[in-house]
Formats: sequence, structure tokens, C-alpha cells
Amino acid sequence: MTENRYIYAFDEGRGDMRDLLGGKGAGLAEMTRAGFPVPEGFTITTRACRAYFSAGASWPEGLLDQLSEALGRLEEKTGLRLGDPSRPLLVSVRSGAVFSMPGMMDTILNLGLNDVTVEGLARLTGQDRFAWDCYRRLIQMYGDVVLGVPHHAFERVIEEQKRKRGVRLDTELTADDWRAVTEAFKDLVLAKTKRPFPQDPREQLEGAVRAVFESWNNQRAVVYRRIHNIPEDLGTAVNVQRMVFGNLGEDSGTGVVFTRNPSTGEKVLYGEFLVNAQGEDVVAGIRTPSPISALREVMPEVYDQLAGVARKLEEHYRDMQDIEFTVERGKLFILQTRAAKRTAQAAVKVAADLVKEGKIDRKEAVRRISPDSLQQLLHRRIDSSAELDLLAKGLPASPGAASGKVVFDADEADRLGSGGEAVILVRPETTPEDIHGIVAAQGVLTSRGGMTSHAAVVARGMGKPCVCGCESIRIDLQKKEFVTEGGRVVREGDVISIDGATGRVYAGAVPLVDPELSPEFRELLQWADEMRRLRVLANADNPEDAAKARSFGAEGIGLCRTEHMFLGPERVPVVRRMILAEDGEERRKALEELLPLQREDFRGILKAMEGLPVTVRLLDPPLHEFLPNPEELVVEVTLLRERGADPQQLREKETMLRKVRALYEANPMLGHRGCRLGITFPEIYRMQVRALYEAAAQLVREGVDARPEVMIPLVGHRKELEILRRLVEEEARKVLEAFGVELPVRVGTMIEVPRAALTAEEIAREADFFSFGTNDLTQMTFGFSRDDAEGKFLHHYVQGGVLEADPFVTLDEGGVGRLIRWAVEEGRRVRPSLKIGICGEHGGDPRSIAFCHEQGLDYVSCSPYRVPVARLAAAQAVRE
Amino acid sequence: MTENRYIYAFDEGRGDMRDLLGGKGAGLAEMTRAGFPVPEGFTITTRACRAYFSAGASWPEGLLDQLSEALGRLEEKTGLRLGDPSRPLLVSVRSGAVFSMPGMMDTILNLGLNDVTVEGLARLTGQDRFAWDCYRRLIQMYGDVVLGVPHHAFERVIEEQKRKRGVRLDTELTADDWRAVTEAFKDLVLAKTKRPFPQDPREQLEGAVRAVFESWNNQRAVVYRRIHNIPEDLGTAVNVQRMVFGNLGEDSGTGVVFTRNPSTGEKVLYGEFLVNAQGEDVVAGIRTPSPISALREVMPEVYDQLAGVARKLEEHYRDMQDIEFTVERGKLFILQTRAAKRTAQAAVKVAADLVKEGKIDRKEAVRRISPDSLQQLLHRRIDSSAELDLLAKGLPASPGAASGKVVFDADEADRLGSGGEAVILVRPETTPEDIHGIVAAQGVLTSRGGMTSHAAVVARGMGKPCVCGCESIRIDLQKKEFVTEGGRVVREGDVISIDGATGRVYAGAVPLVDPELSPEFRELLQWADEMRRLRVLANADNPEDAAKARSFGAEGIGLCRTEHMFLGPERVPVVRRMILAEDGEERRKALEELLPLQREDFRGILKAMEGLPVTVRLLDPPLHEFLPNPEELVVEVTLLRERGADPQQLREKETMLRKVRALYEANPMLGHRGCRLGITFPEIYRMQVRALYEAAAQLVREGVDARPEVMIPLVGHRKELEILRRLVEEEARKVLEAFGVELPVRVGTMIEVPRAALTAEEIAREADFFSFGTNDLTQMTFGFSRDDAEGKFLHHYVQGGVLEADPFVTLDEGGVGRLIRWAVEEGRRVRPSLKIGICGEHGGDPRSIAFCHEQGLDYVSCSPYRVPVARLAAAQAVRE
Repeated sequence: MTENRYIYAFDEGRGDMRDLLGGKGAGLAEMTRAGFPVPEGFTITTRACRAYFSAGASWPEGLLDQLSEALGRLEEKTGLRLGDPSRPLLVSVRSGAVFSMPGMMDTILNLGLNDVTVEGLARLTGQDRFAWDCYRRLIQMYGDVVLGVPHHAFERVIEEQKRKRGVRLDTELTADDWRAVTEAFKDLVLAKTKRPFPQDPREQLEGAVRAVFESWNNQRAVVYRRIHNIPEDLGTAVNVQRMVFGNLGEDSGTGVVFTRNPSTGEKVLYGEFLVNAQGEDVVAGIRTPSPISALREVMPEVYDQLAGVARKLEEHYRDMQDIEFTVERGKLFILQTRAAKRTAQAAVKVAADLVKEGKIDRKEAVRRISPDSLQQLLHRRIDSSAELDLLAKGLPASPGAASGKVVFDADEADRLGSGGEAVILVRPETTPEDIHGIVAAQGVLTSRGGMTSHAAVVARGMGKPCVCGCESIRIDLQKKEFVTEGGRVVREGDVISIDGATGRVYAGAVPLVDPELSPEFRELLQWADEMRRLRVLANADNPEDAAKARSFGAEGIGLCRTEHMFLGPERVPVVRRMILAEDGEERRKALEELLPLQREDFRGILKAMEGLPVTVRLLDPPLHEFLPNPEELVVEVTLLRERGADPQQLREKETMLRKVRALYEANPMLGHRGCRLGITFPEIYRMQVRALYEAAAQLVREGVDARPEVMIPLVGHRKELEILRRLVEEEARKVLEAFGVELPVRVGTMIEVPRAALTAEEIAREADFFSFGTNDLTQMTFGFSRDDAEGKFLHHYVQGGVLEADPFVTLDEGGVGRLIRWAVEEGRRVRPSLKIGICGEHGGDPRSIAFCHEQGLDYVSCSPYRVPVARLAAAQAVRE
Repeated sequence: MTENRYIYAFDEGRGDMRDLLGGKGAGLAEMTRAGFPVPEGFTITTRACRAYFSAGASWPEGLLDQLSEALGRLEEKTGLRLGDPSRPLLVSVRSGAVFSMPGMMDTILNLGLNDVTVEGLARLTGQDRFAWDCYRRLIQMYGDVVLGVPHHAFERVIEEQKRKRGVRLDTELTADDWRAVTEAFKDLVLAKTKRPFPQDPREQLEGAVRAVFESWNNQRAVVYRRIHNIPEDLGTAVNVQRMVFGNLGEDSGTGVVFTRNPSTGEKVLYGEFLVNAQGEDVVAGIRTPSPISALREVMPEVYDQLAGVARKLEEHYRDMQDIEFTVERGKLFILQTRAAKRTAQAAVKVAADLVKEGKIDRKEAVRRISPDSLQQLLHRRIDSSAELDLLAKGLPASPGAASGKVVFDADEADRLGSGGEAVILVRPETTPEDIHGIVAAQGVLTSRGGMTSHAAVVARGMGKPCVCGCESIRIDLQKKEFVTEGGRVVREGDVISIDGATGRVYAGAVPLVDPELSPEFRELLQWADEMRRLRVLANADNPEDAAKARSFGAEGIGLCRTEHMFLGPERVPVVRRMILAEDGEERRKALEELLPLQREDFRGILKAMEGLPVTVRLLDPPLHEFLPNPEELVVEVTLLRERGADPQQLREKETMLRKVRALYEANPMLGHRGCRLGITFPEIYRMQVRALYEAAAQLVREGVDARPEVMIPLVGHRKELEILRRLVEEEARKVLEAFGVELPVRVGTMIEVPRAALTAEEIAREADFFSFGTNDLTQMTFGFSRDDAEGKFLHHYVQGGVLEADPFVTLDEGGVGRLIRWAVEEGRRVRPSLKIGICGEHGGDPRSIAFCHEQGLDYVSCSPYRVPVARLAAAQAVRE
């Protein structure tokens, strides 16, 4: 019974058996053990699910027997029996994966009803209408989920019944109506499946369990797992639980409660409640529920009991909980509890508060925050001082501001969003089928549903702004427009903005301002700093970004790109003269004009980073990037020729075109750039080094602790670095001598060409430091030109599962990571003091940061706004 | 005396001490031991040279003492004394590197003469004129080589003396003239160096030895070593040898003799002889010498003695020898012997003949041929049936035919040749200073000098056609033209052709025909086949190339590129329709039109390779390569707009431009190509696979043993191969079933993306074979776009010593090689049966082939003309 035990009753399982029982099952077991009022039931394990698939989607040996046994014990405990018309046991059958996948998989309620037991239920509850409503719901859900009868076919039957009876709402239908609907449903099932709806409750149960197993592989679930990086092979558990009913009258109801506010983290009960309703009515957002405070008025005792349970659950789990409950004729049942999804703001506040409340320690608090989510707190917000054109106001379901074109359809949102357009998905409500549209949109606006509706939960999970239940707008999906209370019409393609922190919806794009960081946020990052080993530097090319990075906690600049210093209207003409120079003299003259400009740039950056290292990368891009576009020149020359224009002007343009063409490259990314420029045009690098050290020496004289380091890009062979290192040292020493200033001259290299990584032990002999340029390293290791790949095939690759993740976002450990590992080992072997970091965009990606920590890197360098993310991720990377 | 022994007398050394004594020193020692008539002397070792440089270009401890001792013993043996006017010892001081570097380093003759000993020499020989001529030669050479006085300054003094005396030739100058010249030379040395010409012979000797050491680093030598891949740190030995004189009258002389004909390999004494001359007169090509047969007439005894020595030397060394000899007053001296440089044709014939003569075995014969040189034998020759416009006839100094523009200057030849132009270098004679021009030229034509002149030796070494001693043309370097006997003027830039096998020079370019392979050549390759383990396949894309490759011994096709099958005037429009298709239907239609054409291509190739594998690579290049050039389209659209043309036509062009632009890629090499096309447009690959298997199945039905294999390009991730392997298998099986034919479906992949090599163990799970595409692998590993790199910086890198060799020619073992090693190990670990080969251009490069052998590859695949080269190189790669 150990290897092949497939079923655990709730009072047999434990909270730490999550892998086996799934999140929901483990939670139900844990709550049952702790004495919370949970309806009885049992869990069929994820192992059973995997065994089911291994057996070719058929029952693994022993499972059916164990199911009978578990059922028997459940009947014993509840005093009810499946299929017994006098005391019918009704159960829910729900999926419960190891990682929460809300709404992604299938659920069947009221299982156990048939033509006979429905009468028994009516008798027992004394509510005919309720019984027949339950039965038709079972047939509808079972028909949809297990038998594959389309959902809308059932809906049509109900519409028809309403038409016949001349009513508008479901609630206006009577017991007889539901009985008629039920009969029609059974006919529908027979017609569509050629078999009658199964009357045998045991057959119903087996069918439901199979359907839940198989829902693991439905498309929604597959997409969700891909987005959330959940492994494919875990399988789902199945929870079979006695039904309790929130729809037995005004003394019944159902709701969801958070132990704290999931938007702000404030410590107050927060949630929603619907009288006389089943749980699905809340989650699906079909009826807009009342706030939880309303429960206190209608059922004060139940409210107090719920508040007590909530407090105890939070204490038990030492985290903010999201609790589903049902009140059946005044009796409270807890159906589910789980760690509540929350905004980054709430996550930070809750974690900090839990530390203060003594419930968790600092390390735990740091571990609990998803680094990626911090980005939300660093994003800009709507400038409240701006003049705004308010369209409507809904519920503030997920904070943050977003602007974009209105789109009424998830597919369209996906299409436009994937193409790089900012869109706001506007729907009456969202369902799990809309998930790809939400992923692709900047934000979501719904006219129905509350703070715990599907749209709100999913948007918060993704850190996207969301305004829910904006009932003052009327959405017309046919016409692709919505109308505000004031009668303004907003059509597909119009731009709106939403503020998920206030629930406000504005016309047009709105101005944004920098965020202010909360004290809890700063505190949490300080705790992270105490834990981490990796240093966090920033990529910054100008004094403003350097100052911003420093304010976010950057410990220096790991990548200062100098090419941006060659741009700007007063510089480009000089740069062009430099590039197109006919001889060395002309080039030297142009470089001399650039020198003081670069020196000023460096001065500002070194000053902003006083006392911290500033790693300056010498010129990297191909020179033709600074020249006019050849196609435009071709058009100009063609027109000048055609029009017989001034021959002098034509000659000049032709000369320019010839020179631009001479610099043309078929694959500029692999062309004449980086250190190859430094070797063929050493005067450019000399000028840059001079500018840097003149700025540094001047600052040192002024008493400023300037710490320049020089980084050579695109090195692939030891000799390149050897030659350029000598050049840098020569030029820097000349300057320092002239200024009479002592400064160490530190020279390192990017490792961004595969060959550099492969020959790291040779290159390390010439380098004070390595900095992995993982953008280019990824491009060359995969043979992907990022610009070309993203539009042409990379999207297809990631969507189609050829690649698990976009390697430009998350470091490819299998390929690029192997080069990094090799380079670190070999580099340190020959030069143990070698400083090693990363300055590609991966330096700000938490998974990649964890990899960098594991490989023993010294630092990561990322964009200023990613610095807090990296500080947190670096702390989390440290394992005891 | 072991560690620091710096000097060996000729009778102390041995032939196998080449590393220590250099090639020349080892040869002299060997000959001395074997009793050949070699003038006495000693060798200062390469170790002494290295010690000299290590000591900062100063005498290492002990060397001067050892020099005194060696000199003392030489004086004892010869009965002469350095500086003794009554019995003056005169010596030559010559360099002698480990690897032969003919003419690259410096030599000083007649050392030991001064104002006193010159009189003694005159007395002893009874020849005043001779003695003063010797003395002036010493000052001239010593002044040039040791003291840095320019060569032409001395020449001017001689010209001045001739002018004074009203004579034209050196031979017309008398003893008194040479005495006057000598005095003027001494004044010149004093004026230029501020010190008198050293009268102390010992000081002369030390200066000469230092100068030879330092000549190791002169520019000519550095260039030569780079071209011939000779390591920089070997150093040179110095040979000090008693002078013998070929210029003591009509019973003296000097010459060079080959034991066989170095052009054809024919077994006859071959060489040249000058009466009353010193050796340098022959080598420098200043006087055109007589053929060696003339010696038989003027000195029959000496001739017979020489023939005997030649036979014995060849037997001793078991190889064809190149022997320098001098006859001093009827007595024969051997100054040097070495393995003779020879043409590929001669090398093959000599090796095969030596086997037949029982002197060497087959393995040795195979080892002796430089695989690269075989290329010469496979090159096309002048079509003798064509009508040719003969300009002149010279000596057939190095076989092969070449056409190109006439250039009269080595620098100009280098400039044009490096830019890709075909040039013929035309010079009165060449000197070591011209080496870069010879490298860059297609062939060399000289008006003076014989078969052993500098031009002839160097051209043969490089396998370049050369016509020498073409005395019927008059070259005017000033006017940059030459005039033929018939008065025709050929100017710089005019195209001529030379045939180095016949010595003929033609006007214009001439038609060429395929070569015929000699029986010796075929025999030698068969011996190579018995030795090698690597299989040799060919890269061929059409039936003609396949047949050619097979005739050269290819054992299959390792790379059949299919993109060429998309070209051709009738195909391009269909291909364009396929690419620009608005929907799948249109694309399918276009593909259906292409299918029968591809099928025919495959049919021809499979048939030509009956019984051997044909590895077909599916479409690789980016699709826009098949489309019109966007710049041309822009010009067309601009002009149509400007001219207000037919709006319909404009619209069509604009549409085309828009589509072409949509396919534009910033870095097409890293873009949407290779298997990425196969995954995004599977219908293209399906069509190709169908065409291939339909062709194969049809052939099998006809009784032809067709062996197709399918190769997927540009795979970087296991999943890509997995998807496409499934596609290939599906499509192939469908065809085979339809035809009712059984054929194995073998699917492999190129390894050309670094990530593929790094994740070889995953990719091997999906692959029947790996084929290293080292062109792309080199591009991506270095981050070099070959097209861009070669023009912009790669030349600079190789010339400037940043890279030792062009990595596109010789496989980069340190970087690319490391990936290959990894991929072979990991691939074989998970799939021991994995077939592994290489199909980049390196597959035809001997050094790279040796590397492939060492790594345990199964085959190399190269262009048809490289197949014999690869067969030989593969045999040589096998070590006992």
C-alpha cells in the first residue's frame, strides 16, 4: 500500500504532501487536521494521474478498488450514500495541481444526482427548484467537461426556456422550468453523444476523475504552464469532496476572503460575498458580489466565525491567505485556502509586516517576494497633476497605469500585442480562454466582476494593471465599441488609459511620473543586501542614469557604452568626418574635436559614481551606424541625376554614397566592430582612453574618488586583448603622468564571442576582469540575430515549444551557460583574482541571476530600473 | 660542454642534428662524415642564436671562447690562419635555419681579407685581379649586411669606375680598377658608419655571426616564415666554412645540380654551371648559366666525379637532391646538398620512381608529397588545340598555366593581387625583396636567370607557373612595358598568359582544359588509400560535379546543396512566387511546379553516385537571396514616381519592394534560414524530401543502388532536429510506400551553430550523423562574417600577426576545434554509431584533415578538385 497508494482521505494527508496531493488537496488535508470546518472528502494523488497517463490513459491497476474503498469511508463519515435517494451523497470533483493554476482545469459539481436522487435532494432540502437547478448544472458541467457537448448548446436550451416563459433572468425560472431544462439537457446529451446521460453515480464519478486527469493537457492549462514555467510532467491530483450548498436560500451564500488587502497589503479582511449562490458565481464574475463587510450585517455570527478562521489560517500558514468559503443554512464551511496572489506592493508590505508581527524572519520575507514583480513598483505612474479626461470609474483590481489601443477580443489583443503594439483588453468579463489576450495586453478593463473575478486575479498575478466591474460603461462586442455613462463612444483602436490603483479610466494616453519607493520596500532590499554575495552594478551611459542607478542601490557601473556619446546633433557631423577621413591627419583632427566632449561625458559619470567602479566599454558598433542610410542616399542620387541637378551637389552625394557603400557590411553584427575597430583604427580607442583618464585625473586632483576601468568589446583571441591592453596602458599612463596623478589602470574584456569563452584560459592572462556580454554571446551561440529572429521566427519558436523560453530574456543554461561555466573555470584557473561579471540584459533576470550566483560570478550589471530586482534575486540565489 | 656547447665542427655533427645545426649545417656534417669533398668548417648552433636573443642580443657566456677554439681547429685542419698574409684563411659565413628558407637570410663571403691578406691571396693564387675582386666583394657584402651601408651606394661606386674607364661590363675591369674600387668602398664605409672597415679578421667574423643571427628577424625572413608556417622562435644556425673559389679562371666554376629534373621528375642530371664564377652569380640570376651538360664538355672528369657524387648523395639521403658545387682549379667541392624543391608533378614521379628503385617504401612515398601541391596537377592547362598568339619563349621554370594583367613591380602586384585581380609579375630578375609580389601574382615571367634562379625556385616552391630567362623580351621598367623580338609592345595592365611547362608566353587570356592525371599520380593515391582511415567524400550539387568527384576518387557526396537547384532562369520566377505567396495555397502550387525539377536534379546526382551515399542538405539560405535587390527596386520605384509612370506598374513595383523589405534582415547569416525555414515553412522541406525520395525510389525500381541521406542545416537545439526529423521520415515513408520500395531513411544534421556543438549529446539523440559545417561554425565562433571580415580586417589580422592563419582556410584548433572535440566526444557517448564528418572548406585543407583524423571523424567532404588532396592528407594523418 505504499508504492501504489493512490488515494488519501483529507484526514490522512498532510500539508507537506503537496507533490502528491496537489496544492488544494494538501491544503484541505492540512485544514482538516487542524480542525477547520472543511466538508469531508479524499484526494486522488498526482501519482495516480501520472500512472493513468503511463498506462495509456487508462485506469492504473488498483485505482478503481481504492476509489471504492475511499468512497465507502466517505459515505460512512457523512452518513450519506452515493445514489441513495433517501440520503444522497453529492460530491464535487476538482483538479488540484502541485502549482496553483487557477481556473485552468476542470471542475464538476453536484455529482451523484440522477433522475432518482434529484427527487431525494428535493425532499431533503424541501426545495424543488434548488434540486432541479443542481441537477441541470451537473448535466451541463458534466456534458461540457466529460462528454464534450459544447457549453453554448446548453445555454441555448436555457435561453429557449426563458423565451418560452417570457422571462429575462435565470432567477425567474421555476422548479418546473429547471425540470424541463433538465429533460432537454438529457435529450441534448443523447443527441450529441448517442448515449444517455449516465444515471449511475459511480459511472459519473469515474468519468469525472478521468476528465480532470485529462484536463491537465487542455490548451489553457498548457499555455498557463508555459507562461509560469510549470513542468509538463507533474500531473494533477483530483479532490472528491462532499458538496455543501450556498444556494439554499437567504441563510446561505458563498464568498472569497483575503486575510489582508491583496492590492495594498493593508491588514484588513478583504473579499466578497454573494447570498444564495454557488462559488462559481463569484469567481466567474457573472454577478457582481457585495464586499465582505456586508456579511457582517446579514450574518454577524458567521462573519465573526469567518474572521476567526481567517486569523487562524494565516497564523497556521504564516502567510496571507485567499480563502473560499460557503455558508450552508447558516453553517460555515471552508472549501479552500491558499497563499493569496497579491500585487508587488502588497507582497512587500505583507512580508515586511509579517516580520514585524514575528511570524516570519527576514530571510523568509526576502524569499517570498518575486523579484520580477518589483518591476511594477518601479514603473512610472499617472501624473496626478496632469489634466486628465476621465471616462469612467471601476474597481481598482490590479494597480499600475497603462495606455493602449482598445481591443475587444483576446485573439486580436494577442495579434497586436505580439506585434509590439500597446493594447488594453476590454471585455464584459474575462474567462480562462482569454489568457493569451491578457498576456499580450498592457492592461485589462472589464465591465462586470469584482476584485476576485478572473480578470482581477490573473492581472494581479501578472502584475498588469486592471480595472474591473466598471459597470458604467456599456460594451457592444458586435460594434466593437463601448459607451460611457456620459454617452461618449470609444471604438476599437482608440487609445485609453487605465489606473488600476484607483479604478479610473481615461481617454487618450496620459503622462506618467516616477514612482516613490515605500519604506517597506527599502527595508526589504536592505535585508536582501545582507544576504546576497553577488554585487549589483548598473548599465548606464550618462550621469542621469548613473545617479538613478545609484539611488536604486547600484554598486558601480558594469557597462558604460560609449557609442551613445558619438550621437547628438553637434557630434554626428564630427563623427562622420572622423569616419570618412581620407587620411590619418584628417581623422586625428576630428578625434581631437570629439575628445573634450567625451571627457565631459566621462567626468559626469565618474562623479555620479564617486568611490565606485565605472567600467567603460570602448567603441563597439560598426562605423556605418553613424553614417547616412545608403538607401536614402541612392534615392537622392537617383533624383539628382534624373533632374539634371547641380553637378557639384551630385558629385558630393555620389562620393558620400561610395564611401557609405565601402563601409557596407552584409552582417554588421559579425563585422568590423568592437575591438576590431580598435586594432584597425587605434587612434579612436586612444582618444577614448585619453578622454576617460583626463576626466578621472582631473577629478582625482579635485579630490573626487574616480574609479575608471576599461573594457574591450568583442575580443575573440588573446592577441586582440594583448594589443589593446598595451594601447590602453600606454595612453592612460601618459595622461596620469602628465597630471601627476596615481590611479590603477584596470583593463578587462567582454566575453561575448563564443571563441573568447572557449579560450578563456588564454584571454584571462591579459584581463583584469571578464564581463559576459550575454546578448551577443546568445546571438552567436545560437546563430540568432536578435533583430531578425524576434520578428521572423523566434516568436514562433517560443510559442510552438521549440524553445522553452526566449534565450534573450532567460539565459540558455544548456548552451550559453555551458560556455559561461567553462570560461569561469578556465579563467579563474589561470588567474584566481579575475573579477567576473555579466552585463547583458540577463543581468537583470532573476533566473539568470541565480545561475550567475551558482557559477561563482562576482557581480551582475543591469539597467538602473532592474537594480532592485537584481538585489532581491541575488539574495534569493543564496541557498543555505 | 653538453648544455652550453654552442659549436660543432662539420666532422663532429650528424645529419639528424638538424634542430641544433640547421638544415645546411646538418647536411654539411652528414656529407663530411660520409666522405664527400666538403670544404672544412664548423656550425654555430641554433641554440647559440636563441641564447644570443635571450641575452638581449649579446654574446651568451662561453660562445666567444668556443668560437676561438673552433677557429683554431679549423686553422689546424686547413693549414691556413685567419689574418695570416702568407697563408690566409678565408671563410664564408652563412645562415642555416632548421627549415630551409632559401635566399631569405644573409651570407658573407671572403671573410678574412684585409689590406694585408689581400696581398697574400694575390700572391698565393697569382691573380691580383681575383684577390682585389674578392676583397671588394667582402667589403660590399659586409658593408651591406653587417654595417647597414645601402647596397646601391656600392653599386654606384662600381658604375662610376666603369664610367671613368669607359667600359660596360664588370669583367672588363682590371686588378687596378678593383683596387681603386676597394679603396672607394673603404671610404664609403668610413663616411657612412664613421668607423673604418674592420681590418681585424676576428672582428669581421664576430660581426658577421651577429649579423646572421639578426637576419633571422629581417622582414623577408619574417614574411617567408609566415607564408610557410615556420615557428618564430627557432633561431638560425651559422655555418663558417673555408672559402673555395670558382672564379680562379677557366678551370674553375660553380653550379647547381639536381639529381633529377625538378620540373618533371625525370631521372637525369639537371642543373646549371657558370665557368669562372662564384655561387651567388648563379643563384642571383645575373648571368644566365649553361646547362650542366656543358660541364661534361669543358671538364669531363669533374662532370663524372659530380655525377658520382650526385648518385651517392641521392642514395645516402634516399631523396632527390639539390647540390651546390664549386670547382676550384679543377678540384670539385660540394658546398651544400638538400632535398630538392620540385613541382608537384616531379614530386609524384620521383616518389613513385624511388619506390620502384627500392629506395623508399610506399608509406614514405605518400608521406613525401605535399597534399596542397597536388592542386597544381588538377588545375586546368592551356588548350593546345586553341589558336594562340605566341609572344615569346623562355625557360619552362615552373609548370602550370596562368593569365593575368602584366605588372612590373612587386608592390603593385601585391596591391592588385590582394584586391583579387589576376596579375603576372614581369621582372628582369626577382630577388628576395620581391617575395610578396610573387605571392600575390598568378605567375612570374623573367627575362634573365635560369631554371635555378630565385624566381624559378620560389615559384616552384609555391606551385605557381613561372617562365624564366626569356631573353627575347626587352623590359623597360621606366616605361612600364616590354617589347618582344617582333617589336610588339606589351604595357602594364595588358593581359598575357604564360605556360610554365613549355616556357611559352602568349598575348591575352588563353583557353584552358582539364588535366590528365599521370599513372604515377593514380598509383600514389592508391597507396594513400591503403593507408588512410578517414573516408573522403565530395561537396557536389549537380551530376557533372558528382561524376568529376567520383573520377577523383570520392566515396560519396557529403554535402549536396539544394539552393543552387532553386536558381536558373526558368526556376527563379517560380521560386519567387513560392516565397511571395499570399497564402498556403499559392505557395503549395509554386512548390508543386518546383518538385519535378528538383526530382530530376536528385535523380542525376544519385545515379552518378550509385552505390555511394549522397547527403542532401535541405534549403539553407535566407529566402530574400532569391528576390530582386531592394536597392535596385528603390531606384526603379523612385524613377517611376518621378516620371509619373503607369500607376499600375508603379503599384506592382511598390508591392514587390514592400515584400522584399519585409523579408529584409539586418544580419541574414544569423537570420531566418536553415532549419528555421523548415520549421516555419514546412511545406518547402516537404517538397524537397518528396523530390529526393521519389527520385531515389524510381531509381531503385530501375535497379540503381541509390543511397540518399537527408541533412538538416543550422540546427542549434535538439527540438529543431526532432521536429524536422519527424517531417522527413513522414514524407519519405509516404513516398517509399507509394512506390513499394524499401530504403532506409537516414537523417542527420550539420553542426555549424556553436550551440549545436555545445549540446551535442542532446542533438545526437535525434541524429544518424553529424557533419561539421566549419565555415559557419568558424563564422559564429569567432563572430566573423566572412564576407565582411576578409575585406575589412581579416587581412590586417593575418598580416599583422593577430591571427596565425586565416581561420577560414585552416581550422582554428584552439576555438572551433574545441567545439568539434566536445561534440565528437559527447555525440559518440550517447550514440556510439554516430557517423561524423566535416563538409566545410576545411575538409580539403591538409592541416585541418589531420585534425579531423585525430578527433576520430569518419569522413571529410570537400570540393571535387580537393578530393585527391584529401585522400593524400588523410593518409599522411595516420601515424604509426
